[in-house]
Amino acid sequence: MDVRAAVAFEAGKPLSIETVQLEGPKFGEVLVEIKATGVCHTDAYTLSGADSEGKFPCILGHEGAGIVVDVGPGVTSLKKGDHVIPLYTPECRNCEYCLSQRTNLCQAIRETQGRGVMPDGTSRFSFNGKPIYHYMGCSTFANFTVLPEIALAKIREDAPFDKVCYIGCGVTTGLGAVIWTAGVHPGANVVVFGLGGIGLNVIQGARMVGANMIVGVDLNNGRKEMAEKFGMTHFVNPKEIGGDIVPHLVELTKGGADYTFECIGNINTMRQALECCHKGWGISTIIGVAPSGAEISTRPFQLVTGRVWKGSAFGGARGRTDVPKIVDWYMDGKINIDDLITHVVPLDQINDTFDLMHEGKSIRSVVTF
Amino acid sequence: MDVRAAVAFEAGKPLSIETVQLEGPKFGEVLVEIKATGVCHTDAYTLSGADSEGKFPCILGHEGAGIVVDVGPGVTSLKKGDHVIPLYTPECRNCEYCLSQRTNLCQAIRETQGRGVMPDGTSRFSFNGKPIYHYMGCSTFANFTVLPEIALAKIREDAPFDKVCYIGCGVTTGLGAVIWTAGVHPGANVVVFGLGGIGLNVIQGARMVGANMIVGVDLNNGRKEMAEKFGMTHFVNPKEIGGDIVPHLVELTKGGADYTFECIGNINTMRQALECCHKGWGISTIIGVAPSGAEISTRPFQLVTGRVWKGSAFGGARGRTDVPKIVDWYMDGKINIDDLITHVVPLDQINDTFDLMHEGKSIRSVVTF
Repeated sequence: MDVRAAVAFEAGKPLSIETVQLEGPKFGEVLVEIKATGVCHTDAYTLSGADSEGKFPCILGHEGAGIVVDVGPGVTSLKKGDHVIPLYTPECRNCEYCLSQRTNLCQAIRETQGRGVMPDGTSRFSFNGKPIYHYMGCSTFANFTVLPEIALAKIREDAPFDKVCYIGCGVTTGLGAVIWTAGVHPGANVVVFGLGGIGLNVIQGARMVGANMIVGVDLNNGRKEMAEKFGMTHFVNPKEIGGDIVPHLVELTKGGADYTFECIGNINTMRQALECCHKGWGISTIIGVAPSGAEISTRPFQLVTGRVWKGSAFGGARGRTDVPKIVDWYMDGKINIDDLITHVVPLDQINDTFDLMHEGKSIRSVVTF
Repeated sequence: MDVRAAVAFEAGKPLSIETVQLEGPKFGEVLVEIKATGVCHTDAYTLSGADSEGKFPCILGHEGAGIVVDVGPGVTSLKKGDHVIPLYTPECRNCEYCLSQRTNLCQAIRETQGRGVMPDGTSRFSFNGKPIYHYMGCSTFANFTVLPEIALAKIREDAPFDKVCYIGCGVTTGLGAVIWTAGVHPGANVVVFGLGGIGLNVIQGARMVGANMIVGVDLNNGRKEMAEKFGMTHFVNPKEIGGDIVPHLVELTKGGADYTFECIGNINTMRQALECCHKGWGISTIIGVAPSGAEISTRPFQLVTGRVWKGSAFGGARGRTDVPKIVDWYMDGKINIDDLITHVVPLDQINDTFDLMHEGKSIRSVVTF
């Protein structure tokens, strides 16, 4: 079938809006009509060429929402008409990782997903007879795409696609890190480094689970108002603190934070986030992605005296199980997504959203089909 | 009263066996007759002068066992004749730390303990009319000592002092890291770096809780036999592995260890211990004490993909609650202490035990009174 897609033909070039060909779903696969997709930093990172695993030509996009239009043989959990969110971290419920009950990093299709193809080793997309690679197993920058059944979360039908698509990555990454990775408890003091989209979702996650003090750290005072709207109780601009920010944060939180989150991707703030944790029990969670090869450091004494250093991918969420819950939380008004989606554009303006992101003008841009 | 003690008059000098004076217990304090005490690396570290918090003259020793001979006013949980193990990490059950239920690092008397005095700010020991400092709140290198009530674990009366004294530090540090800090589960694969006294206690802790594979890593093949006796199932000598030990250990454990423990105090093995953990859920616990100022490093990707870096002090054990349990485990034959105590000497030979330690000839030496 013909599909309208934004194709990344090569690194560093704008996306090209094309009509490409899409094969129907094979065994265990599902054809989805994408109704909306967010545009994420990870898409921009791969498009830039910095992602050593990036394969071109490909169809980017991993933060979508849509409707099932066809299912391949063997598909049992989804049917035509179901509303779904694609999952770049699938949930097969049968691999060693899923069965461990200790991680969300299902490995069932990791190898082929990393190579930009479906689990059978081939691509469903082509252009002028040549294959186009899938991206993160999703490729949501197309109005139709094919995914494995295990990479789709079924969601309620009254949820608006142009909002809940953001749950496919950013919302879950921030909210989930609070709930599933760190396990923030009611009354806890929390420090969040970086008040971009992820940081704001960490903040509203902390508010949702009943955190006490929610401290936001950012170099940009312009982020304060929005962060407060999402639940931030205290704002710290490191530029306005004389000297080291760690003792400042320890004092502010009366001994150190119970939980901290690094949402920037900077190894220096990762260290600060660990070291401003409370002695005895503070847990620091890294969410941000550091530059390739960069290393974090600290004195082991920080850990021996009870701080814990961990990280989070996709918020520790098991996609098929947890994403529908987050959709419910949005529909119930427990979390705010609307204010995070600052721009909505049609597919042919998708390149503009990358500019808005690089210029820091958007929190999240969404493309609707 | 007159007390026979090994006094550390100054750093770097042998201990001097002297008769010193000991005041009786004040409010909330207990007079204990020490029947046996282990000699630990930490005593040697402070005696060497490398410990910046070391204060001289002092009476070292923190791994003892004895009998209550008198209690001061206000003491309610102990009485004359009770058998006890002194606790350098007390358990007041009332401070912010104890009440958090998230750490064993009771802070009730931390400040005075760090200064080498009792909670009222004075010392009970003196020599020729001048005060001698307490050490780690214990000072077990004396046949009588005074401790706060909250720094004594009451134990069963049939337990032999010259064995269970080791539970005052080494046994609990290793065993507890497995049970309370890491929470090793039955069937888990475990890697232990360093097969000294702590490492052997980690190994028998892992065996006790039903670990599957228990891999020991040490440069000394001579440690293999003893470690196997304590439950080690696989031995790896890094000198005998061609190249990097991390992929070797990942392969051996079929994807990485569920839990690793660093019992050496070397920042390079700390990194290896983290990085040989299983993606998704591996937990690495630092027990060893690194040189002052040394830093650990890794790529944050190691954490973001699910590994957790933590540390353990006194095995995460709450002394008054957990030490009596460990004494029971010893008496029930669940753990082996006898084979770890390689030398038993009277007090006037205590300096020999430091030589045995430095020469690597002992696992644990015990002084009996």
